[in-house]
Amino acid sequence: MRVVIVGAGAAGLTLASNIRNNDEETEIVIFTKSEDIAYSPCAIPLVLGGCIDSFEDIIMHDSKHYLDKDIQIHLSTSVTGVDSSKKTVTFEKDGCTQTIIYDKLVLATGSEIVAPEFEVDDMDNVFSLTNINDGRIIQESLEGKKEIVFISNMSIGIESAYELARKGYDVTFLEQSFGILPLFLDGEMAGKLVELNEGVNFEINSNVTSISTNGSKKEIHYNDKIITADMVILPSNKVPSIFLAREAGCEIGDFGAVKINEFLETNVEDVYAIGDCVEVTSHVTGTPTVSPAGTTAVRQAIILSNNLAGNKLTFDPVVNTVVSKVGDYNYASSGITEAFANMIGLPVVSACIETCQKARYYPENNKLYVKMICKEDGTIVGCQMLSKGDISSRIDALSFIITDNMKCEEIIQKEFSYTPSLVMVVNPIVQISLEMMKKIKS
Amino acid sequence: MRVVIVGAGAAGLTLASNIRNNDEETEIVIFTKSEDIAYSPCAIPLVLGGCIDSFEDIIMHDSKHYLDKDIQIHLSTSVTGVDSSKKTVTFEKDGCTQTIIYDKLVLATGSEIVAPEFEVDDMDNVFSLTNINDGRIIQESLEGKKEIVFISNMSIGIESAYELARKGYDVTFLEQSFGILPLFLDGEMAGKLVELNEGVNFEINSNVTSISTNGSKKEIHYNDKIITADMVILPSNKVPSIFLAREAGCEIGDFGAVKINEFLETNVEDVYAIGDCVEVTSHVTGTPTVSPAGTTAVRQAIILSNNLAGNKLTFDPVVNTVVSKVGDYNYASSGITEAFANMIGLPVVSACIETCQKARYYPENNKLYVKMICKEDGTIVGCQMLSKGDISSRIDALSFIITDNMKCEEIIQKEFSYTPSLVMVVNPIVQISLEMMKKIKS
Repeated sequence: MRVVIVGAGAAGLTLASNIRNNDEETEIVIFTKSEDIAYSPCAIPLVLGGCIDSFEDIIMHDSKHYLDKDIQIHLSTSVTGVDSSKKTVTFEKDGCTQTIIYDKLVLATGSEIVAPEFEVDDMDNVFSLTNINDGRIIQESLEGKKEIVFISNMSIGIESAYELARKGYDVTFLEQSFGILPLFLDGEMAGKLVELNEGVNFEINSNVTSISTNGSKKEIHYNDKIITADMVILPSNKVPSIFLAREAGCEIGDFGAVKINEFLETNVEDVYAIGDCVEVTSHVTGTPTVSPAGTTAVRQAIILSNNLAGNKLTFDPVVNTVVSKVGDYNYASSGITEAFANMIGLPVVSACIETCQKARYYPENNKLYVKMICKEDGTIVGCQMLSKGDISSRIDALSFIITDNMKCEEIIQKEFSYTPSLVMVVNPIVQISLEMMKKIKS
Repeated sequence: MRVVIVGAGAAGLTLASNIRNNDEETEIVIFTKSEDIAYSPCAIPLVLGGCIDSFEDIIMHDSKHYLDKDIQIHLSTSVTGVDSSKKTVTFEKDGCTQTIIYDKLVLATGSEIVAPEFEVDDMDNVFSLTNINDGRIIQESLEGKKEIVFISNMSIGIESAYELARKGYDVTFLEQSFGILPLFLDGEMAGKLVELNEGVNFEINSNVTSISTNGSKKEIHYNDKIITADMVILPSNKVPSIFLAREAGCEIGDFGAVKINEFLETNVEDVYAIGDCVEVTSHVTGTPTVSPAGTTAVRQAIILSNNLAGNKLTFDPVVNTVVSKVGDYNYASSGITEAFANMIGLPVVSACIETCQKARYYPENNKLYVKMICKEDGTIVGCQMLSKGDISSRIDALSFIITDNMKCEEIIQKEFSYTPSLVMVVNPIVQISLEMMKKIKS
């Protein structure tokens, strides 16, 4: 059997490796436009900030690693067409057009950047920041610069803004929304995250209308104001890459992403799609959404590798569980925000607590801020956390809780671990559940 | 309504505080033999090691804190009898015997130390280590001592052994079992924990037969050998304190602990029991067991406070989820060990991995060792972890997983968070589940 995978991001490469882990026979062919593979986009800010030495350090494998595993990988190669009736893929490599037959085709084509809606008179010192090459270019361009303006960027941009501020740059972040990271944090938590951190000048509700050039300076026009900068990082608005999916005859959903069923199959026989290019279902609302996260891509890839080996594992609705580091603080989120609940007219109750990561008397402690969002019957639909400490596994527990439709009163029945040097005896998730139970009762 | 609580450990005090949080009317009376309340026994090793300055620091509240909340607390008071037909409790305070009527009686009497089976010729420089006062006495006795021998102690003892070794004492730990912490760790994980740490001389399978005195030295006789020491810490074998429960007419189970139903009610009307003195059910085996852990006590207390307020929350079977710090490493465990599965004849498969806490390329990383135990159908019944990093919430996720009877193939369908500075993109729990799936398939 030959599996052809288009795309070598987290989805495509994880799929290839897991197919190979499951069996040694399947022929695996990957096509990617990129020259860079197997790196972690989430680590780009850490290189810009100097926490990790170089961009080469965040590349986990080169193509030889895959060839050694008998995975054929074609770098700098464009797939130009799919004929799903003949089960062929056409690609261009080194100026030649070639065709290959597939038994199974997996579209892991990811997403692409949309140009910003405002005008930019000259792209000199104006940069995108979405992939490793963008990172390299920005790093090379930093010399002699002082003032940097980021515009409405998502996680990578916000994280990079703080990392560059830490290095001494004068950083302003113009955010179009009511707060940073609006998909993951409600206003008060986003505000708290900004308040706790230092170094970046945030301006929320900033509507950028144009970027003009004045000598060596850029002028960013927003809200009838102008800010000057040596360097501008553009918004990273992305849309799913669906050109090939359309070619193959795959159905496209309302979000402009490929429709798949729970087994990650498209409507076209033997054509699968995973990663940023697909539409998924929101666990809380039951409606279609997108989940352009490395974790979703990896999870889909592992499930699909099992299904291609004859299993029937399902990819279940998502709760978008995330964690990341902004400045000195980690933020984490799972489920929906209160703002989103309000937007869709879902009646919810929310509670916030400020507590500790470790036992109160323990030295080297970190504060922990938690917000929980419940339906009126107590079913937990969202949770957000901030702390200098490690909250990744704590939000994972919430991911399980939300996916299981648990009510806050069920949390107090759950068993948590305890030791003073790591966590309080009444677990913070239990603390906020008790707070929530009081609110719901009253 | 008057609730009388006997015992002011984690169970009794948490119950009192949570009853008061729920309503301001209930009259709450607590009796305790002890003078010290509201401290964390788990923090005793941290004080001995100097990580926390003094024993006073681990006392979270004094009795005034409870009086201010209108909770009557009688320190240094022995409850000598219960008459459940008259609903009275008799107690001795300041040499006087008094009687009080209860509407609801909660037995949170904890456990008591059993004298070791071997002979000790002279208790000079021989100490118990289970409560804060033991800690104070040991701390005061350390001066001028060099060689310390611990005998078959549980968590507090092992942790204290490493903390004292860190301070320069010459520490030997004689463990009667095949490895340390046999309730929580299988032999290879216990061995790994000892191997990774430095400073304590462990001898497993050590059968101590007597302690004799030779001048200022103690001689510990075990396995036909003798080791000398300046100071000996005795085993901390405990049994449930059930004298009052018997007085009240409560049924006692095979483990010598008070039988309760899922609502934490004893067989005697209006008499409840929580904490170390009760028998609970093991989730994995469905059979009675004990769970003498602060977390179990606190969870039972929170649930009972809700039930006394008219709810009907259940205390579900336990998986004994623990985390603690031994030397430089944290260990964590949930569910049953492979050794226990073998002992009860449950066929299981196990897998071990050595992985990282953070993304492989991230500096300041910690290794993470994971062992998973599954039934032959893939249902996860146990997990053990070791790391220098925070594994408390990670084992909590396993606690949920084991309680939900999840199979390892379901884990790969679950959503986990990811960011390079905190956790790998393929979560360690997913990594071990993939390893386990391979083992089960083959």
